[in-house]
Amino acid sequence: MELNVFSTEQWMTDHEGSAIFNLTDTCVRPLMLSELQAMDHDHLLDHITMDYGTIAGDPRLRKEISALYENADIDNITLANGCNEANKLVIETLLEKGDRVITFTPGYQLFTSYPESMGCCVTALKLYEEKGWLPDETELGKAFEQPVKLVILNQPNNPTGTVFPLALQDKLVVLCRKWNAWLLVDEVYRTPQLPSVSDSYAYGISTASLSKTMGLAGLRLGWIKGPEDLIHAINYRRDYSLISTGPLIDTLGLVAMQNREFLQKRADSIISRARQAVSEWLETENKCSLIMPKTGTVSFLRYDADIPSAELCEQLQEQYGVFFVPGSCFGCEHHVRLSFTKDPEYMKEGLQRFSQYLRESGK
Amino acid sequence: MELNVFSTEQWMTDHEGSAIFNLTDTCVRPLMLSELQAMDHDHLLDHITMDYGTIAGDPRLRKEISALYENADIDNITLANGCNEANKLVIETLLEKGDRVITFTPGYQLFTSYPESMGCCVTALKLYEEKGWLPDETELGKAFEQPVKLVILNQPNNPTGTVFPLALQDKLVVLCRKWNAWLLVDEVYRTPQLPSVSDSYAYGISTASLSKTMGLAGLRLGWIKGPEDLIHAINYRRDYSLISTGPLIDTLGLVAMQNREFLQKRADSIISRARQAVSEWLETENKCSLIMPKTGTVSFLRYDADIPSAELCEQLQEQYGVFFVPGSCFGCEHHVRLSFTKDPEYMKEGLQRFSQYLRESGK
Repeated sequence: MELNVFSTEQWMTDHEGSAIFNLTDTCVRPLMLSELQAMDHDHLLDHITMDYGTIAGDPRLRKEISALYENADIDNITLANGCNEANKLVIETLLEKGDRVITFTPGYQLFTSYPESMGCCVTALKLYEEKGWLPDETELGKAFEQPVKLVILNQPNNPTGTVFPLALQDKLVVLCRKWNAWLLVDEVYRTPQLPSVSDSYAYGISTASLSKTMGLAGLRLGWIKGPEDLIHAINYRRDYSLISTGPLIDTLGLVAMQNREFLQKRADSIISRARQAVSEWLETENKCSLIMPKTGTVSFLRYDADIPSAELCEQLQEQYGVFFVPGSCFGCEHHVRLSFTKDPEYMKEGLQRFSQYLRESGK
Repeated sequence: MELNVFSTEQWMTDHEGSAIFNLTDTCVRPLMLSELQAMDHDHLLDHITMDYGTIAGDPRLRKEISALYENADIDNITLANGCNEANKLVIETLLEKGDRVITFTPGYQLFTSYPESMGCCVTALKLYEEKGWLPDETELGKAFEQPVKLVILNQPNNPTGTVFPLALQDKLVVLCRKWNAWLLVDEVYRTPQLPSVSDSYAYGISTASLSKTMGLAGLRLGWIKGPEDLIHAINYRRDYSLISTGPLIDTLGLVAMQNREFLQKRADSIISRARQAVSEWLETENKCSLIMPKTGTVSFLRYDADIPSAELCEQLQEQYGVFFVPGSCFGCEHHVRLSFTKDPEYMKEGLQRFSQYLRESGK
């Protein structure tokens, strides 16, 4: 089945290993396994049998996850190996060749390339930087003049980090209702203060994982929250791939969720100090500008230099060891993805090197 | 994307929990996590950072896996969350709508239903019980008169447990060469004494996992061995789903592989004692017959009673607590899948209950 190379992921794979200053990694500093084990106050890890576990996922874990939503119980939740797989399972379950899909750009490539690979017709509505990375409402309305099967929203968006204001979310839900369109909201960057868009709509679906703010990408644990019938259909489909996430990952996921408040505080502290470092740097760097997102770990930095983003990123990494994913991976030039996941001193040093590059390259 | 319910997996999900005598489970008695941890003599688990790890999989683990084959190195290996996902990744990567696929029946449903879901044309060649669960060679030859894109073989077969004799394997490879057809061999039940069919053909692919004989289904760790170009293409596709299996699963998989000899001996002992119990029981039960496979954990038991297999399995479990997957899940009536994974006393008690059911039901 033809499928485009996933530019962002391949850029990460090809460049991450040689980075000295990784200013683009979307996960807060990962925990050590031993740190997570130390949070297992009930000694759940001492009693794990390495069979398939509960196929739909440990009910205790699904219970904890359902509490992240206003209107979910465990039958509204199923698990996957990360949020990408969760998204893929939803897309495969809902779409047939020829279906219309609406998503947004710059955005995460999976939302366009995967439905296209299935023969769907994808409209990627532009997010305008001058509107704070929001769509044009007239264009949005027009996109719903024809039948729509699925809308895919990334909230906060990757790479811009921005969130649709409540009024725009409401408008989007009204438009979805017109066609009973499914609304898949990838909320992998969601923090607790943000409501889930999926809660406001009967055909709303939320996907997320423990990878980003929880610092546990190594668990590869994601989930899907949605209407019970859809969750059943996805569970049938999971028999053809992962079958289950297994009792070890489920138990470690449960331990993480039991300690969510602590992990979230840790993330908030890392993110806010990194944001502060970026804000201070921006005051000194007039060749760059940023629409600072209100939450999450990613943002989309604009640079004022006459060089395509992929070339800039290659040069910058080669000469200064500073690693960004270029805007070209998100279909938007003269930007790089800048994240808020590292210690402030590290961020400052990396950003200063970027400034030095911009000065010396003279573009 | 339309996809049939996976009958075997759903039967397992629906019935396994209430089984008293599970005589159909394909995995030898699972290890406890603590047993696996105790095998970590190099203390690899003490130093795991919970990030994405090496995206294509820990090279040390891929090295250990490559040693299971005659002609593989680490670039011929990629990882997946279990063998089903490994198969699915291969199928998705190789096939386009309209492609012809050859597989065998009774067999594992994924090999027919998943390509069919993609719009492929699947020929499932019959395995004849009277030929020792082998295909008719004339029918096999005829199936290759038209172009073939992919052949999927399960070796040992699930559910029959049988293995193609070497001469038939060679013939199959010759037929594949005619069309440069890919040959995917699901070797999840392979034991070390069996050569890998994939080693004998340039377009050969092997999939497997640690679930069955290693007793580690809970790791959900499978792999694909194939030509390097194909592995690259699959790695691109993995960016859209699992991304990586993660450093924790990779490390535990490495520990298991480092202790493979011990784990294999453990499996051999469990399997041979269970086979012995089945053989002894068969001498006393004239309503049942079995082509005893030479290796692996599964077999396909024929019963002489006038009742469809699903109904028999429902009644048997309800009345006697004995759990089998019915032949109907594999498209072959009047059989049940019987596995060699439990202690002999447990096997004997379950089989005697089955005999009692057959006597009392009077069918």
